[in-house]
Amino acid sequence: MRPVVEPVARLIDEFSRLPGIGPKTASRLVFYLLRAPEEQAQSLADAVRELRKRIIFCSVCFNITESDPCAICTDEGRDRSVICVVEEPLDVVAIERTRDYQGLYHVLHGTIAPVQGIGPDELRIAELLPRLDAVLPVREVIIATNPNMEGEATAMYVARQLEGRGIRVTRLARGLPMGGDLEYADEMTLSRALSGRQVIV
Amino acid sequence: MRPVVEPVARLIDEFSRLPGIGPKTASRLVFYLLRAPEEQAQSLADAVRELRKRIIFCSVCFNITESDPCAICTDEGRDRSVICVVEEPLDVVAIERTRDYQGLYHVLHGTIAPVQGIGPDELRIAELLPRLDAVLPVREVIIATNPNMEGEATAMYVARQLEGRGIRVTRLARGLPMGGDLEYADEMTLSRALSGRQVIV
Repeated sequence: MRPVVEPVARLIDEFSRLPGIGPKTASRLVFYLLRAPEEQAQSLADAVRELRKRIIFCSVCFNITESDPCAICTDEGRDRSVICVVEEPLDVVAIERTRDYQGLYHVLHGTIAPVQGIGPDELRIAELLPRLDAVLPVREVIIATNPNMEGEATAMYVARQLEGRGIRVTRLARGLPMGGDLEYADEMTLSRALSGRQVIV
Repeated sequence: MRPVVEPVARLIDEFSRLPGIGPKTASRLVFYLLRAPEEQAQSLADAVRELRKRIIFCSVCFNITESDPCAICTDEGRDRSVICVVEEPLDVVAIERTRDYQGLYHVLHGTIAPVQGIGPDELRIAELLPRLDAVLPVREVIIATNPNMEGEATAMYVARQLEGRGIRVTRLARGLPMGGDLEYADEMTLSRALSGRQVIV
């Protein structure tokens, strides 16, 4: 006989397909759900189903939303002359949490990664350009892709597309993280922090 | 505006309720599912729903099963005179994988843990006793609870319940793990390995 019954094996398989979840974690989750209150399992199943039913991507900025265009794109209170380009919807959440940004967003949905066969056409880069010719002209594009190799390459590519349009193109500052320790900073970060040093007096 | 739309927030909450999944992992999973093929999300939701619909506990050994009694309890080829007592259904899977055990099982569904308010009555210990008086008498009960404090306490408790019935009660050997390194073994394991040493010549 098979040691694990089919519905258990099947859910272990499904959980294992998720990123960062190996077969061991997957079976721990399944056996937890077997013993959890019935309503918790039901509620998880419903939430997964609802996710794909109700969530769409905004046709302007490609962030996730329940209505198109999204709440940020339609918010009259936001500064329409600044667009912040990010890799993922989660990055929008992170920036919104600072409460320091009042402009719009543009979600690329990934980075250029030739090794994985992801070129510029797989991202929402082309869709950024028509936004720059809106009624109210865009004066700044902040490129907020991640400070790693793919993020830098994507930033360079996007920046080149924007050249010659008289738009200010900026990139988030790279340097020592707040609360970090210089002693433990890696060379790349430290070298960036040095070259990007700012005059204080 | 809320930075995260409701269906996303809800699924992040549901994932976060699972053991070992924090809010960060939960949102990573949700954003993965948003981009995965529609059928994968659907398939995960179905698998979770099916799990609770189709899986029951065997009324004899309390292992998980789709039919009651389970495939092991009804298997005529198995040795009905030996019962192996384990904490969890996953332990049955682990022992079955060795292909060295042909007896039956009894799943306690936990260990005695007074700190968490789990006493013997919360486990399937009482249900073990009537099994010993079956038509074919049980001659050995192997206690295979985990080699940690709760597991040892539970093993002692179960062993005491079985005293005076003329049944052999055994416990899985504790010692150095195969492929392990004596140099890195903890004191408890090494001390167990010493006291349980076996004559080889």
